[in-house]
Amino acid sequence: MEDWDLYLVTEEELSSGRCTLEVVKAAINGGVDLIQLRDKGKDLAYRYELGLKIRELTAEAGVDLIINNRVDLALALEADGVHLGQDDLPLKAAQKLLPEDKIIGISASTVEEALQAEAGGADYLGVGSIFATDSKDLKNDRSAVGLNRLAEIKSKVDIPVAAIGGLNQDNISEVIAAGADVISVISAVTQAEDIEWKTEELKGIIKEAKKGR
Amino acid sequence: MEDWDLYLVTEEELSSGRCTLEVVKAAINGGVDLIQLRDKGKDLAYRYELGLKIRELTAEAGVDLIINNRVDLALALEADGVHLGQDDLPLKAAQKLLPEDKIIGISASTVEEALQAEAGGADYLGVGSIFATDSKDLKNDRSAVGLNRLAEIKSKVDIPVAAIGGLNQDNISEVIAAGADVISVISAVTQAEDIEWKTEELKGIIKEAKKGR
Ligand code: NI
Repeated sequence: MEDWDLYLVTEEELSSGRCTLEVVKAAINGGVDLIQLRDKGKDLAYRYELGLKIRELTAEAGVDLIINNRVDLALALEADGVHLGQDDLPLKAAQKLLPEDKIIGISASTVEEALQAEAGGADYLGVGSIFATDSKDLKNDRSAVGLNRLAEIKSKVDIPVAAIGGLNQDNISEVIAAGADVISVISAVTQAEDIEWKTEELKGIIKEAKKGR
Repeated sequence: MEDWDLYLVTEEELSSGRCTLEVVKAAINGGVDLIQLRDKGKDLAYRYELGLKIRELTAEAGVDLIINNRVDLALALEADGVHLGQDDLPLKAAQKLLPEDKIIGISASTVEEALQAEAGGADYLGVGSIFATDSKDLKNDRSAVGLNRLAEIKSKVDIPVAAIGGLNQDNISEVIAAGADVISVISAVTQAEDIEWKTEELKGIIKEAKKGR
């Protein structure tokens, strides 16, 4: 987890007509470190079939695969872990179902949620929405966290902090400067004209920004 | 499973202002055989907390508890099984995640789906919607199956057939006569003025109708 820079969250509805598998392939070619299978609007049967294909691609490429919300799907796909929101299955219940070596990420938008997740044994935090975003799912989640609160959260926990929400090539340097360990994106990659190139660009900016800390 | 007559599917939104826990308590007092925790509109954190309480009640009463759609929630609650629709996690994937003794029910609205589910090892079928129904979830699922197709499905499988969709005190005798082994209801019980009494009434009608076959 210490090596993660760029985290792609999938959402076919935001992929400019391209399918998630195609998006994932291009992002892997561009050097993405971590894929979260989300595609919230799709039914489980679809996500299972899609997930089997993404599992193959990510395993070959040595890229980690995290499943949004569904511990059962994570187990069925032998994914590397699961990402849980504050309204999902509680962390303690998920821990009982998953093998010890699996990654569990928890969404946090306040210091309190972050501390609670870390104390409960979360492996990383998904902190957001950092900025206002058009990504439907995130928009409904919470109002913007902002860079100050991101920095505050980062200063109080030891586990990696993945920032999410409204992030793109123009603002990720300051998000890294504020303390994020990982940059999570949906649209910045899924809606890019050239996904592979955009992935490379974002990763380059993140690596550069981390040097400056 | 051979002893099941009446199967209650929970939906707080259709419970005339009463909470699902209250509805389940009254239905258990009235002699319901099986509870399916559905409450599709609620988030997982809520269903988990509610499920823990329902698990206690059903275990004490010797009533089976089935979880709609989520294998992870079924595992976390140590429920008796899971009910899967045609668009949910595939049966074969669910079987790998659940202990051998757990019940897996599959929704089927055609003979083909029924035969496929039985061949795959389903423990029972949920066949519907038998009649037109106002229950939001079912309405969107499929158009009405009707008694003829229910009878055809029943004649071609050996596993128990639970009929669902638009069932109430006025029509369940003919549904049993057409071959249903189990009557599943939402509104007929959840919207009843006196849930315990309604449960008793429905169960009496089912038992009487089974004698007549
Ligand atoms: Ni769901």
